Amino acid sequence: MSRGTIYGVGLGPGCQDLMSVRADRLVRQASHVAYFRKRGRTGHARGIVEGMLRDDVVELPMEYPVTTEIPFEDPRYNALLADFYAGCVAQLAALAEAGEDLVVLCEGDPFFYGSFMHLYARLQGRVPVSVVPGITGMSAAWTATGQPVTWGDDILTVLMGTLPEATLAERIADTDALVVMKIGRNLDKLRRALARSGREQEAWLVEYAAMAQQRVIPLREAGDSAPYFSILVIHGNGRRP
Amino acid sequence: MSRGTIYGVGLGPGCQDLMSVRADRLVRQASHVAYFRKRGRTGHARGIVEGMLRDDVVELPMEYPVTTEIPFEDPRYNALLADFYAGCVAQLAALAEAGEDLVVLCEGDPFFYGSFMHLYARLQGRVPVSVVPGITGMSAAWTATGQPVTWGDDILTVLMGTLPEATLAERIADTDALVVMKIGRNLDKLRRALARSGREQEAWLVEYAAMAQQRVIPLREAGDSAPYFSILVIHGNGRRP
Repeated sequence: MSRGTIYGVGLGPGCQDLMSVRADRLVRQASHVAYFRKRGRTGHARGIVEGMLRDDVVELPMEYPVTTEIPFEDPRYNALLADFYAGCVAQLAALAEAGEDLVVLCEGDPFFYGSFMHLYARLQGRVPVSVVPGITGMSAAWTATGQPVTWGDDILTVLMGTLPEATLAERIADTDALVVMKIGRNLDKLRRALARSGREQEAWLVEYAAMAQQRVIPLREAGDSAPYFSILVIHGNGRRP
Repeated sequence: MSRGTIYGVGLGPGCQDLMSVRADRLVRQASHVAYFRKRGRTGHARGIVEGMLRDDVVELPMEYPVTTEIPFEDPRYNALLADFYAGCVAQLAALAEAGEDLVVLCEGDPFFYGSFMHLYARLQGRVPVSVVPGITGMSAAWTATGQPVTWGDDILTVLMGTLPEATLAERIADTDALVVMKIGRNLDKLRRALARSGREQEAWLVEYAAMAQQRVIPLREAGDSAPYFSILVIHGNGRRP
């Protein structure tokens, strides 16, 4: 029996018709779908494909043992997650070795700050893996603002809100266009970094880009917290005829 | 009669099944499609949708009056292009005002270094415009390398090969993950900038990402020139359990 393939499928920003034609086909035909979720939740990736799966699909939810209960600087965090990923990989690889194709549902683009990468790195060389890129959340976010993000020779910097405030401030001051992801509980720190860099007035906050609850507001009008699916955008202003 | 809508449709990196489901539907149903091309060429965006258009579609090629014959620093370059875009916009807006929906074919993602932005900026407030994000060429490029591009808190910098060598060198030294686009005739300069930043050995060159001619090579094995559709990638190496 030949081995199956594990497909890491980018679902795009969270709207079914922004999935690629290839992703749409793989998801609808899948006999097995795996996805990460927080314990007790539906899982965001699973939610995106609601109504698209085969009636007889086998679902393989992979439940994080920990999300924000332990800070990621704590060595226990790494150990717990490493064990968790090893367990997921064992299960998926066994199915592929038994001849099953599997689809792993990935929000956005699998190779761009995605959880799938932790499986991918462990699956390489073991079973065939195929990665389908997707529309990133940041593309959906800048599209939602109704303004192009980069012109001419603009430099784009992508930062995570989890970086230290000083790093954020320095990088924000030193780029043309900016995207910040992983904002959530880092919003206050990010706001201080924007103020230090003198660019607070240029910043847009996009919540739930491309989803039903999408909301685009100038950062100065945002409240004290932002949902996990928030992306900050500063537009470049480069050369244009 | 109500006005039509102009759809700026991101086609993704150049492979039909990496187009979004929404883009696929808009392209197949379109009565009018417009696209940029170099005089005497098919046009890359038009090439991507070959075989997908209605038999009775009206095609509106928009032919650049100049591409590389005049350097973009020359004021004549800007004047020629500004006139050209104004003419395109007049034609498209007149059709939309007469009630026609139009699809403008855009490579990659329309708001990410795209030519459509020059039309968009001039169409805003005149006729309804709807932008469909797409999978970027850079997503296809890093997917092609078979390695995730950003992990954990990695900083991603996106640069154009048209930037000065000193800027390139400084930025390349100062980022975790890197993407460089618009390489073409800037390859020698880019190579010197990579050498100055000490990162030449980490760089991958991806030619025609996601297209039939796709080729992934370490930069050190590349020749003296690179096709227009080349993207350079350096992978981040951030936190991972």
